[in-house]
Amino acid sequence: MSEYAEFIYVADLIGVAIFAITGAIAAPGKRLDILGVVVLGFVTALGGGTIRDITLDLYPLVWVEDTLYLYVAIVSAVAAFIASRYIPSPRRALLVLDAMGLSVFAILGLQKALAAGAPEAVAVMMAVITGVAGGMIRDVLTGQIPLVLQRGGELYATSALLGALVYLGAYQLLDEPSPWLDISAMVIIFITRMAGLVAGLRLPEFIVR
Amino acid sequence: MSEYAEFIYVADLIGVAIFAITGAIAAPGKRLDILGVVVLGFVTALGGGTIRDITLDLYPLVWVEDTLYLYVAIVSAVAAFIASRYIPSPRRALLVLDAMGLSVFAILGLQKALAAGAPEAVAVMMAVITGVAGGMIRDVLTGQIPLVLQRGGELYATSALLGALVYLGAYQLLDEPSPWLDISAMVIIFITRMAGLVAGLRLPEFIVR
Amino acid sequence: MSEYAEFIYVADLIGVAIFAITGAIAAPGKRLDILGVVVLGFVTALGGGTIRDITLDLYPLVWVEDTLYLYVAIVSAVAAFIASRYIPSPRRALLVLDAMGLSVFAILGLQKALAAGAPEAVAVMMAVITGVAGGMIRDVLTGQIPLVLQRGGELYATSALLGALVYLGAYQLLDEPSPWLDISAMVIIFITRMAGLVAGLRLPEFIVR
Repeated sequence: MSEYAEFIYVADLIGVAIFAITGAIAAPGKRLDILGVVVLGFVTALGGGTIRDITLDLYPLVWVEDTLYLYVAIVSAVAAFIASRYIPSPRRALLVLDAMGLSVFAILGLQKALAAGAPEAVAVMMAVITGVAGGMIRDVLTGQIPLVLQRGGELYATSALLGALVYLGAYQLLDEPSPWLDISAMVIIFITRMAGLVAGLRLPEFIVR
Repeated sequence: MSEYAEFIYVADLIGVAIFAITGAIAAPGKRLDILGVVVLGFVTALGGGTIRDITLDLYPLVWVEDTLYLYVAIVSAVAAFIASRYIPSPRRALLVLDAMGLSVFAILGLQKALAAGAPEAVAVMMAVITGVAGGMIRDVLTGQIPLVLQRGGELYATSALLGALVYLGAYQLLDEPSPWLDISAMVIIFITRMAGLVAGLRLPEFIVR
Repeated sequence: MSEYAEFIYVADLIGVAIFAITGAIAAPGKRLDILGVVVLGFVTALGGGTIRDITLDLYPLVWVEDTLYLYVAIVSAVAAFIASRYIPSPRRALLVLDAMGLSVFAILGLQKALAAGAPEAVAVMMAVITGVAGGMIRDVLTGQIPLVLQRGGELYATSALLGALVYLGAYQLLDEPSPWLDISAMVIIFITRMAGLVAGLRLPEFIVR
């Protein structure tokens, strides 16, 4: 595996771990048994990528071929399950972790779509979908309006879109893929989302009269 | 492209635009930013067709191959977002637009399934699924019971089923496909659904004692 | 068809019928028309297997190729719709039927994944997914937290996991597939789940402080 491919692989697994944790800590006040937590962590962590790969007809799915993805999701969810008994996990932690997962998955989703030959507009849409879909499934399953559609969703999809567009622009100026470009775009997404959360920044709102 | 294929293409894009608008105006009282609205419009508009094509293994998906679908969904959702600041969009508007989208997508879903060689029973099921799935996703994401399963769901799936059966019967009498048959079947669905809504007509109800 | 293949086929149809009935009786207090009930029965009965087959790229989907699946789902949902007007169907009936469907689909999902050459960890995950996904879709569509994630979810995913592991262990000791092994594993799942429900057994719980 090239150094760059290795970087992508590790980043993907980190994204899986982060989203699995958010799935595991997403149900405050609810009482799930440990396997319910694993199921929720699993669909949150692998749901976005699965939708992307099914949509683009990229088979076999990564986690079907490489079971390390499964184990990372399961171990992360179980660890979060255990840790949450000793460490309180406020909603703020969920929002920060979710923003990290969003950053990683949006850029990896963009790359995978481009590598599969999707048109740029589709690739950008895939960046947003890969970033937000896992969390959407998590929120629907726990009976909540998805974060991306909630009041708390300040600059959520927006940050993923912005990072994807920056990446796309810079990508065409470079000769070869670089982990630094990827990391920069991820950081842009994370910072934009955090700024939105902290400062309550938001795009024009939609208020039905 | 033959004249008939052109008709289908335009009808499909009209269906996408209509459902994208319903997605954008589906969250009364909720405060979404403009990209949240676009995401909701997008999944409502393209969700039904995506499920149909994945189920029937029809790759590449239309909107992955032809990005005009994406742009129509996005522009429609944004336009509805802007318009809704000046024009009140009552729930009634949502129901009428949803019925229009249902009519168009049910018949196009039926045709696409038949063209893909699906058995007639499957094609009829696909008509219902293509017609209702986008709206179901929209309703689940905004925290509501899907229209097709709600009290307001008078003759909802029923109208799609009726139109599909009429189409299927007439289709076998004709020598070649005709836009007029398509439009007639769509109108039958729309009128049936509207009649159900206006007159409160409904099939026998299911009441658990 | 070999005797064993026949057994699998019949078991699969029985699972479809059971889950279609749970879909039809899942909305106590809600007023669905008969086609809403059919739609709900259909997605509950065929949703789990559809997700499994799409994930594993097993096309054409069984119910697209063999319409008997469709008819069994529809007839079962309609029969439950009619029966529920004369026979009260308490929540307890739903839980028992759901446990039966879970047992059947978990083992059949495991087998289908193994037959498709999936790694064992993936096959076990597929057992759980096939068993729980249909019911999850049903619960989300009717506005409830999925059973597998609810307080009433005592040993839900756990029982499916246990049965799958027992099956996997015994499977490697046998020379050829046997309906008795399948039935035994299904019974283990059903009894475990029932024991969990009746005795209120559960795995360590997850309580966010």
